Amino acid sequence: MNRINELFGIKYPIIQGGMIWCSGWELASAVSNAGGLGLIGSGSMYPDVLRLQIKKCKQATEKPFGVNIPLLYPDIEAHISIVIEEGVKVVFTSAGSPKKYTSRLQSHGIKVVHVIASKKFALKSVEAGVDAIVAEGFEAGGHNGVEEITTMCLIPMIKDVVKIPVIAAGGIGGGRAMLAAIALGADGVQIGSRFIASDECSAHINFKNKVVNANEGETDLTLKELTAVRLMKNKFYNQIQEAYANDANKEDLRILLGRGRAKIGMFEGDLEEGELEVGQVSAMIKKIMPVAEIIKEITDEYEAERMKIISL
Amino acid sequence: MNRINELFGIKYPIIQGGMIWCSGWELASAVSNAGGLGLIGSGSMYPDVLRLQIKKCKQATEKPFGVNIPLLYPDIEAHISIVIEEGVKVVFTSAGSPKKYTSRLQSHGIKVVHVIASKKFALKSVEAGVDAIVAEGFEAGGHNGVEEITTMCLIPMIKDVVKIPVIAAGGIGGGRAMLAAIALGADGVQIGSRFIASDECSAHINFKNKVVNANEGETDLTLKELTAVRLMKNKFYNQIQEAYANDANKEDLRILLGRGRAKIGMFEGDLEEGELEVGQVSAMIKKIMPVAEIIKEITDEYEAERMKIISL
Repeated sequence: MNRINELFGIKYPIIQGGMIWCSGWELASAVSNAGGLGLIGSGSMYPDVLRLQIKKCKQATEKPFGVNIPLLYPDIEAHISIVIEEGVKVVFTSAGSPKKYTSRLQSHGIKVVHVIASKKFALKSVEAGVDAIVAEGFEAGGHNGVEEITTMCLIPMIKDVVKIPVIAAGGIGGGRAMLAAIALGADGVQIGSRFIASDECSAHINFKNKVVNANEGETDLTLKELTAVRLMKNKFYNQIQEAYANDANKEDLRILLGRGRAKIGMFEGDLEEGELEVGQVSAMIKKIMPVAEIIKEITDEYEAERMKIISL
Repeated sequence: MNRINELFGIKYPIIQGGMIWCSGWELASAVSNAGGLGLIGSGSMYPDVLRLQIKKCKQATEKPFGVNIPLLYPDIEAHISIVIEEGVKVVFTSAGSPKKYTSRLQSHGIKVVHVIASKKFALKSVEAGVDAIVAEGFEAGGHNGVEEITTMCLIPMIKDVVKIPVIAAGGIGGGRAMLAAIALGADGVQIGSRFIASDECSAHINFKNKVVNANEGETDLTLKELTAVRLMKNKFYNQIQEAYANDANKEDLRILLGRGRAKIGMFEGDLEEGELEVGQVSAMIKKIMPVAEIIKEITDEYEAERMKIISL
């Protein structure tokens, strides 16, 4: 029995990454219904919106689902209270210390998973008592670590120092990468970008189309002085690079970033002024598909590649 | 039959990366004798040194071996002539256009492999008629592409567009990563950093010890304006970062780099003033070992992990 399947009560060890503006109840419930674990990305939600999203998700699936809570956003206390009140069974925390909320959430029967990008924070998460960790490589989209350690290097390194289940993230959009992650020692995978190109993703169609047309080298990990983020190269990205060239300090960058850039880009579809968070694997994503078909394609490819490995 | 084993006439699809100041005839012949393909790294050698190294390698092994020729170094014409005259059977070219020498080398019965870090250059290599490519991810040590595409993302993307054999490089130091590379679709692997920590490597013992004591986050891909290179963070690296902070231009950087930095660091063992080229996987390398034991450990771990995948 796979430890991740067992921990969450799911069929495939595939977690859909919680992505701001992209993963509401529709995406999360579709992934859970297809046998993975769907996550509502709460980072872009006001408390009342989050509560409504959870309620709708419960109506849309009887399968387990979770909520991703980036600890750097405002309303964090309200979000923690809501997931407890609403009886959510799984919480993924990220971008903050795992010490603060883990035991409180667990005391309500919630499984807690923390997202890390280095050995140092993996060990801190174990110390905080989390049930599992997501080890996220440099190639992943959205917020990320500054250590730039790639999935290929990160997973075996983490597996050598922790005993709890490890979910690999970063660069995984298909069955070959999923099998590679398992070969590296991961117990499961978290897939984000691939699910942007799904019918059920709440992102604007312009952003979905941008993702399926992306080519290699069109994302970059930047804004490390604020919170490091991998995003697509567009007008807004070019402005960031110009700011760097002009010796911008942290405050200048904060002003340039402003408020709502992610919403403008990913939810409202302004591909030039908006922040478009996506991973390197976008270069491999070619088609917007229903979630159930994406999961079938990934698991079929995984099994076919596994058979090839067996026959070597 | 594995296509890489067949192409080179070797037992394991493991290529030892050609590394300046680190891979002379002793390392290359040891790897070839252990069943992989050893490469003499010619980038740090004057023509007469290269000729002598090839002659010694021929005496030390009856197995196939090759020479890595970075096309950006001086003496390139002399190096090409020498490998032809000395009857070398395999040449890996890198850091330049594959169009220039491929057919000339092949007309002398030499198998030609070109190192790339993006789909764009993979397709150019196919057009140039190379026998195979090395697809090298962002995490790899030494000279690298500027696209920052990681091994996890690069290999499946390349495999989807080329038919010739693909050797994965970057982040591979053990059997788990080797199996992951094969799962991603690679036909073989190129391993560099791990072989620095070998008895037969010509690097200074100080550098070998530095590699086995390296921790995560201690390398960085820098100097993209000249030739992008992944190196260890030391005094010289800090000087580069200071230069960037002071708006250094390309010429300033060239002056700072100066001549012989790599020799000073890797061959003479000055860990502060020298350039120490190594990959992210250095954080996983714990011991200096004989080459034969390294290859046995990698292939044993590969087989053990393959059995785990089979039993899933």
